[in-house]
Amino acid sequence: MRQSLLFTKTKKEISKEEESVNARLLIKAGFIDKIMAGVFTFLPLGLIVLKKIENIIRQEMNKLGAQEILMPALQPKEIWQKTNRWQIMDDLYKLKDRQGREIALGPTHEEVITPLMKKFISTYRDLPCFVYQIQNKFRQELRAKAGLLRGKEFIMKDLYSFHADEEDLDKFYQKVIESYFKIFERLGIREKTFLTYAAGGSFSKYSHEFQTITPAGEDTIYICQKCQLAINKEIKEETPSCPNCQGTDFSQERAIEVGNIFKLGKKFSQSFDLSFFDREGNKKLVVMGCYGIGLNRLLGTIVEVNYDEKGIVWPKEVAPFLVHLLVLGKEKEVLAKGEEIYQKLKEKKVEVLYDDRKDKSSGEKLVESDLLGLPLRLVVSKRTLEKKGIGLKLRREKEEKIIAEKDLAKYLF
Amino acid sequence: MRQSLLFTKTKKEISKEEESVNARLLIKAGFIDKIMAGVFTFLPLGLIVLKKIENIIRQEMNKLGAQEILMPALQPKEIWQKTNRWQIMDDLYKLKDRQGREIALGPTHEEVITPLMKKFISTYRDLPCFVYQIQNKFRQELRAKAGLLRGKEFIMKDLYSFHADEEDLDKFYQKVIESYFKIFERLGIREKTFLTYAAGGSFSKYSHEFQTITPAGEDTIYICQKCQLAINKEIKEETPSCPNCQGTDFSQERAIEVGNIFKLGKKFSQSFDLSFFDREGNKKLVVMGCYGIGLNRLLGTIVEVNYDEKGIVWPKEVAPFLVHLLVLGKEKEVLAKGEEIYQKLKEKKVEVLYDDRKDKSSGEKLVESDLLGLPLRLVVSKRTLEKKGIGLKLRREKEEKIIAEKDLAKYLF
Repeated sequence: MRQSLLFTKTKKEISKEEESVNARLLIKAGFIDKIMAGVFTFLPLGLIVLKKIENIIRQEMNKLGAQEILMPALQPKEIWQKTNRWQIMDDLYKLKDRQGREIALGPTHEEVITPLMKKFISTYRDLPCFVYQIQNKFRQELRAKAGLLRGKEFIMKDLYSFHADEEDLDKFYQKVIESYFKIFERLGIREKTFLTYAAGGSFSKYSHEFQTITPAGEDTIYICQKCQLAINKEIKEETPSCPNCQGTDFSQERAIEVGNIFKLGKKFSQSFDLSFFDREGNKKLVVMGCYGIGLNRLLGTIVEVNYDEKGIVWPKEVAPFLVHLLVLGKEKEVLAKGEEIYQKLKEKKVEVLYDDRKDKSSGEKLVESDLLGLPLRLVVSKRTLEKKGIGLKLRREKEEKIIAEKDLAKYLF
Repeated sequence: MRQSLLFTKTKKEISKEEESVNARLLIKAGFIDKIMAGVFTFLPLGLIVLKKIENIIRQEMNKLGAQEILMPALQPKEIWQKTNRWQIMDDLYKLKDRQGREIALGPTHEEVITPLMKKFISTYRDLPCFVYQIQNKFRQELRAKAGLLRGKEFIMKDLYSFHADEEDLDKFYQKVIESYFKIFERLGIREKTFLTYAAGGSFSKYSHEFQTITPAGEDTIYICQKCQLAINKEIKEETPSCPNCQGTDFSQERAIEVGNIFKLGKKFSQSFDLSFFDREGNKKLVVMGCYGIGLNRLLGTIVEVNYDEKGIVWPKEVAPFLVHLLVLGKEKEVLAKGEEIYQKLKEKKVEVLYDDRKDKSSGEKLVESDLLGLPLRLVVSKRTLEKKGIGLKLRREKEEKIIAEKDLAKYLF
């Protein structure tokens, strides 16, 4: 895309009230805009990144054999009373319509999916079954100061699984763990992400979280130096040794929760009487699991672990474009060569942002390019033409090198 | 996809309270589920259709040069007070958070996009500019009885345009009209859709709607027999002749509004002081237009104008799959041939739903196939194998014919 057509612009200064790195960088670079604490607009570049994250997650969910649906945000009070959560969830947004009917704005969807599945599950032949959505959640968040890390409205992937017994749930649960690590790998945060033991529920001793190490994190985790699994603070306080390998040597880190998986057991199937007939004709309650990933938070986390003093450093798979092509200077040959390379990259289906703006100095363009943080920068200028080449610099590296045009393919296609 | 893996099932009976054709058929066929009046879940097949509609609209918006963003549903009271709509919009959902702060659930986004664009528009060089989103809207709907035609929560594409003057707005407005007709063409409802004159606002005499003729429609329109433009009831009551060609011969029809375009003029740019410096350095207010299409309603409308007594008849571009492949009978050769054709279609990237279910009779499969309404049905059975072919039937036609396997390509690839 031509940068001259992009309606957003980078900002020189942003409000001092933005404390978090992710919000400061994303607002400054024109990826997002804040409308109030914890509520954001995704601008064109930010939306491209969000959609890339969404597609990676969708692909991995589909590989698990999960089927995608889309549930609503508006939910009747009655289903929330069935599980008692109308009263006890502090962060539930409640509203009243013109007819006086009370409605919840969904913070999660167990109360919707469980009665929904009751319409389709009747015997063991209908199990197991895996259903997910990528949809907006609403939560009353008191400390919404961490940019995209903690929002009042955010997009979440929530997967629910339905099983005949706990053994089957356990098997699928392991598969989801692998799937989540694959997702974090593709998003460029795998190395810093740990599976942690967290507080369980009435059904299982532990739930699990995926925590990514960053100074911006609001949680503290303890990484077992023996097996590289981690435990959350609440577990550490209870037990001095690793629940996995019994190791006792831990490193303490600040981290942000990027995923949460939970064996729900029969908690919700009991509330809604979601049951099935087994092979012997006995009626049994369905065993459930749930698995969440917040997309906005992921986007914020990716920035928190991928930036330097000049700006964002996008991992390849989620960068809004792979290449940032800059023409520096106003010489005819320079502009013509820039245009030629832009067309060539487009023909080859390379994702490219082309800084063809005429009202920006070379210095401004280079500074902005670092701020936007696309993985690969190509520069066409009088200097590069004299050297019969193109300037190529990886965002992660310091040095630019001049390469011959015919060698572009090596780096790009 | 294999139908045996699809977790949804068709229903024999559905609640009598569903009055609308679209809700009855879509619920019966397992495309959607109702959680309360005007609020629905999209099940896997319904979500595929919704995404196809979304992609068609996105493609046409991008052709207009519009840039996609994503604005939030949660909106502070203050911006709604600026335009006075906090008080006067009856269908605005309002809520109060734990800190007592009042929030609107966005029924539309002029109040968000106008102050947003103020951050990016400063001179004539920033104009014109076209920005859209495909996002959830919330409206308190008293008569939510028409299935997807009238919802409390629904996905809408809303496009906003920003211009230096009214002439430029007029030009773009015409382009959007063409773009909308292109969308309705691709969605299979073009023939029944008319551009109508509707009540304007303070800025322009008329706004325009796109109305699709169907007995399920809640509006009455008058189609000019001379120029094929139409006028809404409120206009007909004011003026006896066509505003376009002055014709006076009209046919009266029931119709549903599937799109609305509106010249906002300076109404919102005034409220938020969205202005720019022109070539001469004078400060002027930006001229705006807005252009909406409700996706849920479109989906409902497509069904209302494309069904018969047996079920839905999906237009090709929005059908969840192009082909419904059925194996009838349990003979080994039949199952093997079905599997072979399924693999072949998948290799050729043909979108195919494969009814490989073993617990359904041939009669049940055929009835369900008509209900689901995919454009092209292929049948493999003992009968077709004896005739050395495959049964092929278009959903829109009555007769099945037997074709040779090698001729499949003619119909599909």
